[in-house]
Amino acid sequence: MAFKVIKESILKYNDDIAENIRTLLKEKKILMVNIISSPGAGKTTFLEKVGPMLGRKGIRFAIITGDCFTSRDAERIDALGLEVVQINTGGACHIDAALVKNALEEINISGKDLIIVENVGNLVCPAEFDIGEDMKIAFLSTAEGADKPLKYPLVIKESKLAVVNKVDLLKYVDFDMDFSEKCIRQINPGLEVIKISCKSGEGIERVLEWIKNKIKIKKENVL
Amino acid sequence: MAFKVIKESILKYNDDIAENIRTLLKEKKILMVNIISSPGAGKTTFLEKVGPMLGRKGIRFAIITGDCFTSRDAERIDALGLEVVQINTGGACHIDAALVKNALEEINISGKDLIIVENVGNLVCPAEFDIGEDMKIAFLSTAEGADKPLKYPLVIKESKLAVVNKVDLLKYVDFDMDFSEKCIRQINPGLEVIKISCKSGEGIERVLEWIKNKIKIKKENVL
Repeated sequence: MAFKVIKESILKYNDDIAENIRTLLKEKKILMVNIISSPGAGKTTFLEKVGPMLGRKGIRFAIITGDCFTSRDAERIDALGLEVVQINTGGACHIDAALVKNALEEINISGKDLIIVENVGNLVCPAEFDIGEDMKIAFLSTAEGADKPLKYPLVIKESKLAVVNKVDLLKYVDFDMDFSEKCIRQINPGLEVIKISCKSGEGIERVLEWIKNKIKIKKENVL
Repeated sequence: MAFKVIKESILKYNDDIAENIRTLLKEKKILMVNIISSPGAGKTTFLEKVGPMLGRKGIRFAIITGDCFTSRDAERIDALGLEVVQINTGGACHIDAALVKNALEEINISGKDLIIVENVGNLVCPAEFDIGEDMKIAFLSTAEGADKPLKYPLVIKESKLAVVNKVDLLKYVDFDMDFSEKCIRQINPGLEVIKISCKSGEGIERVLEWIKNKIKIKKENVL
């Protein structure tokens, strides 16, 4: 019982900060998305692809990358001339709201349309923490096997979009796309699924349009 | 400070149970390995391959599979006629020693040579918890990218073997094996690395020999 109370108070502390972030971003009409995946599902590679495309569409954005220890993801994004802040969790398995608050203070958010948070590569813990985002995106990969939505249901349940990356590998891995979608829908019936390949570029434009539409809705203040 | 004390006492509780398990397995001369990987790196597929091979070599073993919610991994292993117990963590991100203790009570361990624990798919948290194993095995995949040892160093530091699975995909993914091994050695200079493909069977025999050798050492009581 003692542990339960303690967990609740840690979550309460986190959720209070998350709510402050949400209020700030609502006021500024900035959309924030929180991308969650396994290690190596391709989040950073996706950002390397979609970042320059967002820029060409005139969308003003910054990226926050989360990692236990390294700055490798931020270095890759910075190399493309995109605005990025690295969060190091010091070994912790997820990004929390306090870390995002600190990261947002490093960004000149006035005039931004979008903040993209790339969480620590972990399909379990990041889904448990509200960081003040408008929506989570579950980022899956065909290399991981089709049953992952059943095994990691919270991230699927909490997300507004599921991206299935690495469709270019479908010929070489045992991945049943129909079963994967069935698993996703079993947990979150209305969840939109977009299949992409960061290698071939397939599907990236669809995710871009999805994000653009969410930015538009946020600007119209109906989110 | 309060949280730190609490974390320490949770770990102390865990470590006490882990020590009891270690004492029991030492007395019975049973080797226990703890396999840790990302979701979808291929742990269960590996067990489907290596399990029947262990059986043919006369090694008496049981498998404990860990998952947040499902019994999918145990079902796959049970279908091969192998002895398996499923641990469900109820959403928690790792297996702890108390869960392993309960699982061991479901196994007739007398006469066993080996217990293989397949941890929850997560490269961060499982590495932090001693479950009474003789050794951890870091189980990586070429589909995840070569830099994962740098990004998830604890599991590499804590392991006695690194397995790199899915070498059959090397032609189709951007994975620099030399860089991956360099990253591994940077964190754990002496760590043995075995490259395998559960699809083609390449390298599985080497892991089998590695395990057999560790069983032999355990029996000789010099571990």
